[in-house]
Amino acid sequence: MVCGMSEQALDSILLQAIAEDSPYGDRTVEALALGGTVSGVFLAKEEFVLCGLQAAFRVFELIDPSSAFVPFFEDGKTLKAGERIGRVAGDLGAILKSERPALNLLQRLSGIATTARRATEEIEGTTARILDTRKTTPGLRLLEKYAVRTGGALNHRMGLSDGILIKDNHIAAVGSLTEAVSRAKANAGHLWRVEVEVGSLEEFREALAAGADLVLLDNMSNEDMARASLERPNGVLLEASGGMKPGSLRAVAQTGVDFISVGALTHSARAVDISFEIESH
Amino acid sequence: MVCGMSEQALDSILLQAIAEDSPYGDRTVEALALGGTVSGVFLAKEEFVLCGLQAAFRVFELIDPSSAFVPFFEDGKTLKAGERIGRVAGDLGAILKSERPALNLLQRLSGIATTARRATEEIEGTTARILDTRKTTPGLRLLEKYAVRTGGALNHRMGLSDGILIKDNHIAAVGSLTEAVSRAKANAGHLWRVEVEVGSLEEFREALAAGADLVLLDNMSNEDMARASLERPNGVLLEASGGMKPGSLRAVAQTGVDFISVGALTHSARAVDISFEIESH
Amino acid sequence: MVCGMSEQALDSILLQAIAEDSPYGDRTVEALALGGTVSGVFLAKEEFVLCGLQAAFRVFELIDPSSAFVPFFEDGKTLKAGERIGRVAGDLGAILKSERPALNLLQRLSGIATTARRATEEIEGTTARILDTRKTTPGLRLLEKYAVRTGGALNHRMGLSDGILIKDNHIAAVGSLTEAVSRAKANAGHLWRVEVEVGSLEEFREALAAGADLVLLDNMSNEDMARASLERPNGVLLEASGGMKPGSLRAVAQTGVDFISVGALTHSARAVDISFEIESH
Amino acid sequence: MVCGMSEQALDSILLQAIAEDSPYGDRTVEALALGGTVSGVFLAKEEFVLCGLQAAFRVFELIDPSSAFVPFFEDGKTLKAGERIGRVAGDLGAILKSERPALNLLQRLSGIATTARRATEEIEGTTARILDTRKTTPGLRLLEKYAVRTGGALNHRMGLSDGILIKDNHIAAVGSLTEAVSRAKANAGHLWRVEVEVGSLEEFREALAAGADLVLLDNMSNEDMARASLERPNGVLLEASGGMKPGSLRAVAQTGVDFISVGALTHSARAVDISFEIESH
Amino acid sequence: MVCGMSEQALDSILLQAIAEDSPYGDRTVEALALGGTVSGVFLAKEEFVLCGLQAAFRVFELIDPSSAFVPFFEDGKTLKAGERIGRVAGDLGAILKSERPALNLLQRLSGIATTARRATEEIEGTTARILDTRKTTPGLRLLEKYAVRTGGALNHRMGLSDGILIKDNHIAAVGSLTEAVSRAKANAGHLWRVEVEVGSLEEFREALAAGADLVLLDNMSNEDMARASLERPNGVLLEASGGMKPGSLRAVAQTGVDFISVGALTHSARAVDISFEIESH
Amino acid sequence: MVCGMSEQALDSILLQAIAEDSPYGDRTVEALALGGTVSGVFLAKEEFVLCGLQAAFRVFELIDPSSAFVPFFEDGKTLKAGERIGRVAGDLGAILKSERPALNLLQRLSGIATTARRATEEIEGTTARILDTRKTTPGLRLLEKYAVRTGGALNHRMGLSDGILIKDNHIAAVGSLTEAVSRAKANAGHLWRVEVEVGSLEEFREALAAGADLVLLDNMSNEDMARASLERPNGVLLEASGGMKPGSLRAVAQTGVDFISVGALTHSARAVDISFEIESH
Repeated sequence: MVCGMSEQALDSILLQAIAEDSPYGDRTVEALALGGTVSGVFLAKEEFVLCGLQAAFRVFELIDPSSAFVPFFEDGKTLKAGERIGRVAGDLGAILKSERPALNLLQRLSGIATTARRATEEIEGTTARILDTRKTTPGLRLLEKYAVRTGGALNHRMGLSDGILIKDNHIAAVGSLTEAVSRAKANAGHLWRVEVEVGSLEEFREALAAGADLVLLDNMSNEDMARASLERPNGVLLEASGGMKPGSLRAVAQTGVDFISVGALTHSARAVDISFEIESH
Repeated sequence: MVCGMSEQALDSILLQAIAEDSPYGDRTVEALALGGTVSGVFLAKEEFVLCGLQAAFRVFELIDPSSAFVPFFEDGKTLKAGERIGRVAGDLGAILKSERPALNLLQRLSGIATTARRATEEIEGTTARILDTRKTTPGLRLLEKYAVRTGGALNHRMGLSDGILIKDNHIAAVGSLTEAVSRAKANAGHLWRVEVEVGSLEEFREALAAGADLVLLDNMSNEDMARASLERPNGVLLEASGGMKPGSLRAVAQTGVDFISVGALTHSARAVDISFEIESH
Repeated sequence: MVCGMSEQALDSILLQAIAEDSPYGDRTVEALALGGTVSGVFLAKEEFVLCGLQAAFRVFELIDPSSAFVPFFEDGKTLKAGERIGRVAGDLGAILKSERPALNLLQRLSGIATTARRATEEIEGTTARILDTRKTTPGLRLLEKYAVRTGGALNHRMGLSDGILIKDNHIAAVGSLTEAVSRAKANAGHLWRVEVEVGSLEEFREALAAGADLVLLDNMSNEDMARASLERPNGVLLEASGGMKPGSLRAVAQTGVDFISVGALTHSARAVDISFEIESH
Repeated sequence: MVCGMSEQALDSILLQAIAEDSPYGDRTVEALALGGTVSGVFLAKEEFVLCGLQAAFRVFELIDPSSAFVPFFEDGKTLKAGERIGRVAGDLGAILKSERPALNLLQRLSGIATTARRATEEIEGTTARILDTRKTTPGLRLLEKYAVRTGGALNHRMGLSDGILIKDNHIAAVGSLTEAVSRAKANAGHLWRVEVEVGSLEEFREALAAGADLVLLDNMSNEDMARASLERPNGVLLEASGGMKPGSLRAVAQTGVDFISVGALTHSARAVDISFEIESH
Repeated sequence: MVCGMSEQALDSILLQAIAEDSPYGDRTVEALALGGTVSGVFLAKEEFVLCGLQAAFRVFELIDPSSAFVPFFEDGKTLKAGERIGRVAGDLGAILKSERPALNLLQRLSGIATTARRATEEIEGTTARILDTRKTTPGLRLLEKYAVRTGGALNHRMGLSDGILIKDNHIAAVGSLTEAVSRAKANAGHLWRVEVEVGSLEEFREALAAGADLVLLDNMSNEDMARASLERPNGVLLEASGGMKPGSLRAVAQTGVDFISVGALTHSARAVDISFEIESH
Repeated sequence: MVCGMSEQALDSILLQAIAEDSPYGDRTVEALALGGTVSGVFLAKEEFVLCGLQAAFRVFELIDPSSAFVPFFEDGKTLKAGERIGRVAGDLGAILKSERPALNLLQRLSGIATTARRATEEIEGTTARILDTRKTTPGLRLLEKYAVRTGGALNHRMGLSDGILIKDNHIAAVGSLTEAVSRAKANAGHLWRVEVEVGSLEEFREALAAGADLVLLDNMSNEDMARASLERPNGVLLEASGGMKPGSLRAVAQTGVDFISVGALTHSARAVDISFEIESH
């Protein structure tokens, strides 16, 4: 496993990224007839949480199996602007071909880890935990969920196969929340809890009565969420969801919910600024 | 071609996105034994430039070939909050499985198109054009470059195979800018121009003397770029690059450069807010 | 979804089966220069539970997209010897090429469904349910789990990603059952219950004290399992496992356990006898 | 070649088996935060013919390339209950992830080899040989044919591309057995013999007259097969087929046929009982 | 089956050819913003045997599924310069993208069919037949073997899996021709004849004595081959091989051999001249 | 990069070539039960330019990773008949399986390199250069373009994505050459020159007036091409194309054109004669 994925699945993503960048080789390097062995370093240009370094190194290795790598930090470490992150040595042409796909991945995953870390820090001291969502980049879900964990937040289900979460559309199709929860509990399989989405205290109470194991409070006010926290019986967990944005998370956490799910962790994380510098020729 | 890709290459991306979301099917829908045919609409929740609608529809079609689609707008249209974007009709289980992967793609591509449109509008009336970069999401380059075009900006080269751009590392490896440009012009092939990166007016003048067809002005002040614009001979094109951020683009454009390349178009575009609503059961 | 799989994933299995059977075409049909359109039927040669008919039809369709199909029964139906199952019409060469891969799949899946149905019937009237295991044919897990459901039994987890089940090797690695359960409950994620394997009543009681949600009773006597059923608190579920063979399942079910997991459903199911007969030329 | 397949083709099967078992990693091992290096052994729980050990080892190697293996026996060896088969050492998490896919393959292939060995032993001393059929598990044909050879039986053709065998449906399509054999001999290509299926002594004599090189006696009585053996000229080979079951093979062999083809070798072989035990932590 | 291949295998070759030609689309058509529907025809520019038209059409269909096709001739037809071969109608951009990959295939396969036809005509009236070899283009073997058949010659084995042919290196490894033939006959399987290569009359006689079913006469003089033809017993077939070139084939055929294998059919066939003309806009 | 391709892309081609030659292993080697380690050499049987040796070696390595290789020459070297090219050592069965696919590739690529070398020599002393075309074997474009470079000629664009070349069909669709060139120059992107095809001096002059950067002179007489060379302004390049055949290239080069594109380099190159000889057993 590398960055939360099997080697084979990760390689498949990286080879695709390499192929789309240089299907015919590097026209510039070939025109210049460059060669020789060099080393280079990844350099932090701002403060962020490092994530994806092994995957970035793997890009170089796929292009030039004789490349050598030295990581200076592990994923999860908070770096400051100016810190060197790791070194690569190998053939100049291979390194120039690897640099951009490697950076594209490293900057994105570190951006997500950094966003997750900040969300986690914002609610520090409360009993709530930050969750991610299924709002990930097509094809990169496992890597982005790994970045969320690297930043200290938790993963919600990996996808539709990975847990029961009854939403408004399901309830509408079944006819009632009570019937939906009851049907899910009968069929869920013995290893899964049943979570149901509600949009009001009234629905929340119906969910409790129906025997839901977890309740997702969707777009509810902090006041209503605080009341739901008070009313819930032991063992029932609460997830706040809907428009959860950094900056407003602490107030939500203080309502007493157990989880806050934040789509922006993955769908809108900014790439952090990292450069790759050739050190020597 | 759909969204700038062959059907086969697009399907490969979409099938990967579907597989990572539901490798074993949808546990909730199966537990609830949902079925029947429904229709749903994509709904704009804020103002943005639409991009990727055909790819989003294709997700539904891959999961349920009997799905039907009606687009209400074409890619490139600016939508307002509250506008319906298009309708899908099909099997409920298939629609619930398709919704999230489709939205993940549509929100991201529309986010990039919107960012590109805003950058383009910022420099309206000048002679400069906005370019993208190679700072794209691994695996999604063709789609993201399509989104850039949809927003009205231009694509820089698609990758390393697709044009000659001599950067600082190449120059260091060759020994001098003059030698690098001269070697590139000799070997580039007859169909390609030669672009070279410079970091100062001094290097800029060396590039001109060496016969560069295009010069990338990297992290230079607006004053220096304005001077370069004045000094350049007919037929030599200038590209401003390095930390080009929305908000400061107009001042750059007014220096007289021909192109401004903006990495943030793709590496940090925010997903726009779109929902998918089931209309009927 | 066809037989519990996405069309694309199923096709991948079927195309592999076709390719291994006729990488160069059908040497006999080519030597005989056969052609023309025919129809044929699948025929039950013994009593069994039908499973996999749509996948079998799909083999014909992949080889000859203009083939036509009529199913006479749906998966799950118990057929008697001599009953016709469904008809295919198409090009003779294509039908002769499709017949064997289609039968190989249909006979295996029907064999599993039949075994599952018999196990389910054996415990009819008790409160126990039959579960499958991960002892499936490499590459065919989703199809075989579908066959288990078709026969009326339940699926245990689809694989290691799909639920928490602490076994003896995990406990040995952690150091104690109590610590293992406690660690799993802390980290499992909010949607999953925690199941733990025990081999004795003593361990069973430790599992209860540690807060396990489910307990797998491995190779325990019926007496001990009956006692465990009496001792368990409300809400804790029991799974009997280890050498569970058809013929002895009813006695196990009568101990009061909730689930009996039976590896033989998938790892040793006999293919049922089905033939394919050309009706007309 | 490993177990009758190229490394690449085998890996493709094994990676599929791994992916279907743990698309998201091992939720239990991750919840328990297990690590460290261990060793384990495969252990025979009954008497059987070993088959597939190198493929089983390859599962571990694909998941953890730094795993180490020691086989204690070679494929084809008859093991007794209690014998250790081979040892694996590596990362605990990787070993727990590899164990089940490796066992699933090893138990199935050893089951087939054991069945083939028993069939072979049943006819020992006669001049007949046991053949397999095309009734194999979809996707596993090369491995299962290898297991048949490992058990001492012979492979019939690998598939439709691999030899000429005229069956009843071909004859019906051509119009007569004589015409079918004659057409096949004209077109078969110079390297292939022509085999034809007959269902009676009358058809058998027609096959001889038509010049068939081999005759498949389908569902004929032992008396008729004995007569056919007497009547056939030098150089014509006979294959008994149709409902050939272990226990009745010796009587068939004594009719004087050259080959007995047994579908049950592959389509209904029981998985043998093998366990994997962690030895040390 | 299309051109001797399954649809899926052919598509895989064609999609690769398309992808290598236009990984990013057609820069010229996009720069010119061309659109609209047109039709075009394939036109013979010299006399040749047509081969591969359905595969050529399939290129257009893969790029634009709404394309329409009309073949004017079937594969195997001898065309004269100036004849129209078939028409395609569809989107202009798709047609311009399809034209070159389609022509590349059509010209090559027709070149092989033409070469095979001429070799066949050269030996007309003799009892010999022309065979191809394994000297085919990597990846295109099935198509090229189909082209050989289209031209009226026969296929030798499809590859190493497809027949027994003992060559000098095998004999050297075994120790003697007699031992090699005897071992092959014992192990070959019941459906295969045994062919052995000899380089002299002495070896030829050894092969006969050893019981070879076919003998490949490698680089032997026409006199020696004529003598071998006289000496061989009934039922033993002879293949002339080694430097067999168009122009000298008739003399070889007149020695009485049954087959002449000609590597140049596939390894050095000239592409025939075909153009694709847009008829209308 | 090996022979102008990424390792992964090359392996994909080679594995396909291996699979089509031996999907079920080597029936002859298996029947003979051959084993042991041997070495063999590639041997030049005529004079040619070597190309593809590393790819040929890679075939052996894919089949037997423990194979060892020693190249005696590098690609681009002109070899004489009788020279040994390189040695391979490894398992006999693996070597016999690798030999033919390796030779098929090596003979074809060397044939192309040799053809390119001869074309280049034919115009030695002129200022013209030889270009290849898109008339390559489906699936082998990158390798064949590499062979062209190895022979000393230049590559034209790699495909439709790789440069702007306006041909007659484009002009017809746009309406006029002038409009087509003007539209292309507006949209081409900043890194690409614009080439346009003309068929007469009149069109040539229109192309110059329209501002074309390069002009392809299609099927024009040497006289007209000489006149075009005189008339063209500085900086405009000329490419002669259409029926350019070895033997007539020097006269074309003497017209003063810059490039001569020769489809026959790739579409009709003869495979050179190379054998593989086992040295020792």
